[in-house]
Amino acid sequence: MPILNLDEMRGLAERVLVAAKTSPENAASVAQALVAADADGLASHGLSRLPAFADQAVSGKVDGFAVPEVTRPKPAAVRVDARSGFGFPAIAAGLAEAQKAVRETGVVAVAVGRSHQSGAAGFHVERMAEKGLVALSFNNSPAGLGPWGGNRALYGTNPIAFACPRGSPGAPLVIDLSLSKVARGKIKLAADQGEPIPAGWAVDKDGNPTTDAKAAMAGTMLPMGDAKGAALALAVEILSAALTGSNFGFEASSFFTAEGPPPHVGQFFLVIDPATFGDGFAERVEGLLQAILVQPGTRLPGQRRLENRERAQAQGVEIPDTLYQDLIRRAGGQA
Amino acid sequence: MPILNLDEMRGLAERVLVAAKTSPENAASVAQALVAADADGLASHGLSRLPAFADQAVSGKVDGFAVPEVTRPKPAAVRVDARSGFGFPAIAAGLAEAQKAVRETGVVAVAVGRSHQSGAAGFHVERMAEKGLVALSFNNSPAGLGPWGGNRALYGTNPIAFACPRGSPGAPLVIDLSLSKVARGKIKLAADQGEPIPAGWAVDKDGNPTTDAKAAMAGTMLPMGDAKGAALALAVEILSAALTGSNFGFEASSFFTAEGPPPHVGQFFLVIDPATFGDGFAERVEGLLQAILVQPGTRLPGQRRLENRERAQAQGVEIPDTLYQDLIRRAGGQA
Repeated sequence: MPILNLDEMRGLAERVLVAAKTSPENAASVAQALVAADADGLASHGLSRLPAFADQAVSGKVDGFAVPEVTRPKPAAVRVDARSGFGFPAIAAGLAEAQKAVRETGVVAVAVGRSHQSGAAGFHVERMAEKGLVALSFNNSPAGLGPWGGNRALYGTNPIAFACPRGSPGAPLVIDLSLSKVARGKIKLAADQGEPIPAGWAVDKDGNPTTDAKAAMAGTMLPMGDAKGAALALAVEILSAALTGSNFGFEASSFFTAEGPPPHVGQFFLVIDPATFGDGFAERVEGLLQAILVQPGTRLPGQRRLENRERAQAQGVEIPDTLYQDLIRRAGGQA
Repeated sequence: MPILNLDEMRGLAERVLVAAKTSPENAASVAQALVAADADGLASHGLSRLPAFADQAVSGKVDGFAVPEVTRPKPAAVRVDARSGFGFPAIAAGLAEAQKAVRETGVVAVAVGRSHQSGAAGFHVERMAEKGLVALSFNNSPAGLGPWGGNRALYGTNPIAFACPRGSPGAPLVIDLSLSKVARGKIKLAADQGEPIPAGWAVDKDGNPTTDAKAAMAGTMLPMGDAKGAALALAVEILSAALTGSNFGFEASSFFTAEGPPPHVGQFFLVIDPATFGDGFAERVEGLLQAILVQPGTRLPGQRRLENRERAQAQGVEIPDTLYQDLIRRAGGQA
């Protein structure tokens, strides 16, 4: 498999998107997020998404030239209309506004509507924590999870992400978890590669347990934490879709195909300035993290991600050969 | 077992607390929340807590006369110092301030510090949803959950609660879930009654699985959703304690005994006015809820709670005889 450094990956991704009816600004925003996911070892949210994204830009399912519209309906509220464009530039625009506003107000809510895939949810909140802020995010996606006791998917896998600064040098603490037992992208990757999935990840379209990744893609994933996880997924669906004027998971078109109307999913963020409530927040967080780490057998959430990132920055990332050839062809033959 | 109506229960609870060094205002606030929990069938957060609360008011572990201090450090931020008093009046004071502020700002964060037990977490957010608001809460409690892979409890069972209005008459949607497989109160109730607990709820102090409720009380509960649930508990611990200037779970004294310093746990709320982001929020929520209910085998989160509440309002609540006799004695013999 070819190995590319992160700059090469970003450059290639941008060329693929620009060749597919996308503005250079939007292409840069999407490329940055996808390559960051690959660097963190989250291949299912990395360049593997690019062929589908490019096809959707060409078909018009996503508007690659959209300029997100950012408004501030209330002092602590930011509204973003993604205008059927990519999710990444819309989210970045909303969070940039929140970052300014939050020093004045203490907390800011950001509602992103008429949006598209948000990628690895930790990516966005980590940007806020790098500025000393605490951030929570709630995203929905095309239906993959059903209500507890039911047999048909209504919600997305609906990741919750949390990030905050630490009282030590280095990356912030980032917690990023989808509410399915596993991320849908992992099942998609297994389906694409013709590999089976472990039992307990999903049921097929008739509600029966399955280890066939393709049958699982046609069925419903199981929530983490059973009924409690399903209830959390409902809360995330309400925050990310009902509050942002977006489609629910069962109303949204696929992120994987070029056909159909825009997915018009939503993202909801809460950004908090911890200094609002007192001093020493990051040091208190660090104390808790050290109390975790003195227990043998523990590691912090996101630790593997940071190890992957360090290795990727030094050595680059392996890209599956089929994907690489596809991207080169889409970029017009430039390596 | 004696059956009391809800007014009788509240009256009895108030008399018990006032007899135990508590102001009438604070006694009314605590009684209202405990009786609401009993009415909802959540006995582990109901009058069963009252003997321990009264003992703590007498010993001074909780200051029954505390008047919570509410400040507004930023337009969208409310800070409450519970001043070592009961959690319920402190939370109510903070949310009352948030309810006023949120119409101006769109979202408000409420940080309650130096607090005590918050009871059934759904109680507080439901009050906000009754006013047409969306609310999220994050509470910590004395250590009951360990980090994933570890063997010692650091976090509380750390409930997350969510509530929002529906587009139909009646009670709001309320989601209230502790991040342990079950609420600690259920294990305490089993321990008090000398009953075993199901496997998978907890480990003993050496990290071994147990069905002995007393051994479980001395050990660590298991999180819902395994590693993901443990990561969520960490996020809740940071929001409820680090952000509010409160004790982490492993620093907090017990809610069940009269000895030691105040627990000084924390509560963090986010209150959102959905009208900030557009019209029709409650109707969209209702559409989603109806899409759940058309699937056979489903029910909405909190449905059993509402059925219990209706029955309790009509028929009263059975109080265990030992508890009833104890409360009557504490209230000075008045029935």
